[in-house]
Amino acid sequence: MRLITKVVVLASTALAALPSLAAEGMWTLDNLPYENLEKSYGFKPTPAWLDTSMRSAVRLAGGCSGSFVSSQGLVLTNHHCVIGCVEDLSSEKQDLVNSGFLANNPGEEKQCPGMEVNRLEKTQDVTTRMQKALAGLSGKTFSDAKKVEQSLIEKECVGNSGDQRRCDIVELYGGGQYHVYQYARYQDVRLVFSPEYAAGFFGGDPDNFNFPRYNLDMSLLRVYDLAGKPIANDAWFPINPKGAKEGELVMTLGHPGTTQRLLTIAELETQRDLVLPFRLLLAAEYRGLLLQYSTQGDEQARIAQTELTNVENGIKARTGMFQSLLAPAVIQQKREQENAFRSWVKNDPARLKVYGDPWQTLSETQIAWRNLYVDYVMVEVGFGAMSQHVTWARTLVRGTAEKTKPDGQRLREFSDASLPAVQAGLFADVPLYNDFERMKLAWSLSKLREKLGVDNPVVKNILGKKSPEILAAEIVSNSKLGNSAVRKQLWEGGTEAVKNSDDPALKLALLIDEHARKFRTDYDQNIEPIQKAAASQLAKARFDYKGTQVYPDATFSLRLSHGVIRGWDEKGQPIKPFTDIVGLFDRATDYAPFKLANSWVGAQKKLSKKARFNQVSTNDIVGGNSGSPLINAKGELVGLIFDGNIKSLGGTYFFDESVNRAVSVHPAAISEALKTVYKADHLVKELKLK
Amino acid sequence: MRLITKVVVLASTALAALPSLAAEGMWTLDNLPYENLEKSYGFKPTPAWLDTSMRSAVRLAGGCSGSFVSSQGLVLTNHHCVIGCVEDLSSEKQDLVNSGFLANNPGEEKQCPGMEVNRLEKTQDVTTRMQKALAGLSGKTFSDAKKVEQSLIEKECVGNSGDQRRCDIVELYGGGQYHVYQYARYQDVRLVFSPEYAAGFFGGDPDNFNFPRYNLDMSLLRVYDLAGKPIANDAWFPINPKGAKEGELVMTLGHPGTTQRLLTIAELETQRDLVLPFRLLLAAEYRGLLLQYSTQGDEQARIAQTELTNVENGIKARTGMFQSLLAPAVIQQKREQENAFRSWVKNDPARLKVYGDPWQTLSETQIAWRNLYVDYVMVEVGFGAMSQHVTWARTLVRGTAEKTKPDGQRLREFSDASLPAVQAGLFADVPLYNDFERMKLAWSLSKLREKLGVDNPVVKNILGKKSPEILAAEIVSNSKLGNSAVRKQLWEGGTEAVKNSDDPALKLALLIDEHARKFRTDYDQNIEPIQKAAASQLAKARFDYKGTQVYPDATFSLRLSHGVIRGWDEKGQPIKPFTDIVGLFDRATDYAPFKLANSWVGAQKKLSKKARFNQVSTNDIVGGNSGSPLINAKGELVGLIFDGNIKSLGGTYFFDESVNRAVSVHPAAISEALKTVYKADHLVKELKLK
Repeated sequence: MRLITKVVVLASTALAALPSLAAEGMWTLDNLPYENLEKSYGFKPTPAWLDTSMRSAVRLAGGCSGSFVSSQGLVLTNHHCVIGCVEDLSSEKQDLVNSGFLANNPGEEKQCPGMEVNRLEKTQDVTTRMQKALAGLSGKTFSDAKKVEQSLIEKECVGNSGDQRRCDIVELYGGGQYHVYQYARYQDVRLVFSPEYAAGFFGGDPDNFNFPRYNLDMSLLRVYDLAGKPIANDAWFPINPKGAKEGELVMTLGHPGTTQRLLTIAELETQRDLVLPFRLLLAAEYRGLLLQYSTQGDEQARIAQTELTNVENGIKARTGMFQSLLAPAVIQQKREQENAFRSWVKNDPARLKVYGDPWQTLSETQIAWRNLYVDYVMVEVGFGAMSQHVTWARTLVRGTAEKTKPDGQRLREFSDASLPAVQAGLFADVPLYNDFERMKLAWSLSKLREKLGVDNPVVKNILGKKSPEILAAEIVSNSKLGNSAVRKQLWEGGTEAVKNSDDPALKLALLIDEHARKFRTDYDQNIEPIQKAAASQLAKARFDYKGTQVYPDATFSLRLSHGVIRGWDEKGQPIKPFTDIVGLFDRATDYAPFKLANSWVGAQKKLSKKARFNQVSTNDIVGGNSGSPLINAKGELVGLIFDGNIKSLGGTYFFDESVNRAVSVHPAAISEALKTVYKADHLVKELKLK
Repeated sequence: MRLITKVVVLASTALAALPSLAAEGMWTLDNLPYENLEKSYGFKPTPAWLDTSMRSAVRLAGGCSGSFVSSQGLVLTNHHCVIGCVEDLSSEKQDLVNSGFLANNPGEEKQCPGMEVNRLEKTQDVTTRMQKALAGLSGKTFSDAKKVEQSLIEKECVGNSGDQRRCDIVELYGGGQYHVYQYARYQDVRLVFSPEYAAGFFGGDPDNFNFPRYNLDMSLLRVYDLAGKPIANDAWFPINPKGAKEGELVMTLGHPGTTQRLLTIAELETQRDLVLPFRLLLAAEYRGLLLQYSTQGDEQARIAQTELTNVENGIKARTGMFQSLLAPAVIQQKREQENAFRSWVKNDPARLKVYGDPWQTLSETQIAWRNLYVDYVMVEVGFGAMSQHVTWARTLVRGTAEKTKPDGQRLREFSDASLPAVQAGLFADVPLYNDFERMKLAWSLSKLREKLGVDNPVVKNILGKKSPEILAAEIVSNSKLGNSAVRKQLWEGGTEAVKNSDDPALKLALLIDEHARKFRTDYDQNIEPIQKAAASQLAKARFDYKGTQVYPDATFSLRLSHGVIRGWDEKGQPIKPFTDIVGLFDRATDYAPFKLANSWVGAQKKLSKKARFNQVSTNDIVGGNSGSPLINAKGELVGLIFDGNIKSLGGTYFFDESVNRAVSVHPAAISEALKTVYKADHLVKELKLK
């Protein structure tokens, strides 16, 4: 979910206004567009520059980016990337989400439950090894062998250092290349500073993906080592409060989550006609439910706040993606590109022999995927039983069963590499609100019935003669899984303990798992491997067709994007690239989400009015880039990426430099906030802000 | 809204299983497919049969159909067609929606506020007169002249009998023909019988548009004359509890609301890419809001019940329409048909000269319509300010201004012919729930801001520095428009009274009206007349191309559809055409919407178990057909149409006889219910049920 939080993207169209600065691309550090960088900006990154940048950037395992900004493990990221932690640290008595949080010294810094920070150390191309292991295989044998080989490589890479090292296989170019990424792993991450919700999400959903903008979407974390001390890191980005000039080269080093720019027309049509409207309609109804729940009282509003923000953010993001695919010109252009590429393969017998017709394969796979989609999403993914109790129960049911198998034969999410995170999530003490859980579960079970149908055997088996409301009430009232000790005991008791338990959430999860596994198997054997094999064929053909100066789709791994600070034209009106503090006070009203935090009202007179607040640049980014540093050629931090403009949302599928913009917090706003509003003198000193 | 309640449709595809019985078409009585009726069913309707049928069928002005079933003004229609009335007659103390209602004698029959019944008396073709009045005109002069001429014809037809006669111009074949329809008008309509919600909407939203089905979606009304006596009518359909056999000819005589089978591809794409997803997403969120509101207490559930039902019904209907347009085969087939027709015109210079290129015109109009759509729907149609107070206020603002103009120059909905209904609606005493209204208004104002954007000048003008919640609270707390006497006084005080009032709902309505009129004018001058003119050209070309044995799109005027009782195949499994009372008791659970009404539980032992309950037939119907009689060749009532199966929902755009089915209440269920469950002996006698 988090990956699709605050995201941006960009892609060359025939109409791109500034072809000489084409900012398209999320580039891996081992395949940068050096020629373009030099020609467009006169910039030649050195190996040392690259190494420092790589080791200054970090990934938040939950789906965000960030960067070191001091030598003592201080990490700058977005407010919306830590809001889940702030909520976990809050209670009815102490509402840190709305009051904000500032640790006055390291002793006051609070550990974020389950949060993990990764810093990329090195990467290695293992394509040959993977291809050898997979040669001649297809379907189930292909996916089984792939899991075994991936798991083996990852394990070799991690060695005995699982608590300090993490290794992930990254499939690039849709399976055309496999790389192993080795990260330093930090699981003791503490909250240092988070502004009030009213400042960190000023403008709320109405302003989300909007610009001009006035959002202090920042927070600070600190990374601790295994001995419980702040780490001493030798690479970081110094913050330069002056920022960058209009037109100046700026780069992001972040972890864009998912783009789908290499999808075929048949695959895009599945997105447009099924996946996006299905998810949007489900989310819209859920949003209505949460909105009304939030009006029932202050406590309900507090409980629902993060979930509502996530849901609204997902809706805006998918709305933008959906609208981008509905623009006839986009599909038409993509179709023409595809036809040209396809003809290039088809009309040459030698190429046809090597590459076959992956377009046809992908088109046929769409039929199977469309038929499976609703069952898969509602039952296996779990939209048909949304509840903390059921989620824990499903992890217990499936995890205890999977961990009895050899590592290579398990479902990916229960591999040895993944188990520590699974357990951390399962054992973490988090607040649980029964009334809220009951609402979510009752509603989602009713959607299960609606989407699959009253007479569907899975629905009949799960609901029996009970109503969704009654079943949800029984589970939430009687389940003991809210107690983390109970969950731990069951996890350690294994499949027997889980099967013999009379906990109603476990009973439901056992029923669901039986059906869900069928849908998962269908997907894992009959859809995904065929799609991946075809995409991999396409990738090879594309290297042949276009050369290697292409970037792979985003994979939540480290990428560099380049661009310049620049506004755009909206219906003939120029939008300027910077906003300032004067604009913030102009936009404010007495009512959320445009109500200023008290701290800002109090500091109004002391603030530097002309200080820049937010800015836009042409960088090609997408969800997962949230929290990315925006740096200049000197490696100084000149912005904190937190969003894209509304036009950028088609970036999942294509990049249009004329209107797509990345939105970042200006370093002057970060400096003014810490110095004047929050008076965080120790941080100002650590960050060397003046 | 009502028009899109319970609906069905059907249309010939290449795969239609039974071409010899092609049931496609909603035929006007003056252009029946006699040849097909005789060939397919051996049925030759006589003029007397037609006359009786015409005068036995009625229209409920709110958007439903019905029929006389006795000589004393008794009208049979659906439960869901009278639920609004039942709600109006209910209160917190007496919840007739859930308890049901049965008048034991005429004295107990209760008048339905604002309900009007129309019975078609005769029709006249006025095409020549209209074409003469419109010759050579276009744009604003065309629509102005059209309004004047229509209004004149309607007025001549009504004469001095406005309280007993209603005349409507009906545009057939997209403006290719104009007919004037003269109705007997009855405005004293009283509720006689309505079952419990649990019986009249058994299965609720989950079973809606579903089959097999067990829904007693019936009610009885009685029509009274101006002297307050039940009317004595000489034409009605006797109920035959035996019903019709599988495969037997059955016809509906009803008032299908809207079909769009003659839309061009460009127009269908606007539906698919903009109109349907926009409306669906808005409705989905509103549904979530209403669902959660309903869980807040029994009284909230009661208040929201009808609105929720309508919203859910609209969502299912539009979902079916949307999915039908997403099926690639449908658009492809339509495209091929269009190309063939278009070439037939284009490749013949004589035809090209007469008909021009209306496809191109319609394609260009789509651009303007797409640009206007969101403003039009949110501001002019009013989805951006959903509230009873604001609706009244907008009627007051616009109505008082319009009624000062000559009849022909007014907006159509304030013509002399329409004013009585406008006033009846405005002056009616209906229950008002401030908490519910505040919720609706706050939410819809927030959607106005979202859909148009925070920085939109209309939004800024309407909201100012207030939040949607604050503005809604001010209006609902302080407006006096809840008092019908106040509304009447303002209406009679005219524009001056309205402008000088300090009622906050009126102040908001004045602001909205200023913007809304601009959007309305844009639509009325730059979009609708161009679309209509092009559609009319297309219609003329189509007569030339296909002959006159074609049926016009539905226009909420009287139509006959023909078909047979028949099930269908669902994924290879045959669905039988009848359900029975045994099945009802099997499907029941202890929880709504599958909880049986107590009356049915109590009567279980006495009921004839094998009595048929619901049935499906191949008739081509659509929303507005709700309540239509299903009759056999003898003119006996053998069913009460209330729904279509899920596959029928594409019927707005095309008819597929292989899977589209009309769903009706079997007459045996009507008979068993009145005799055994409700013991309505006087009605059983009046209906001559044995």
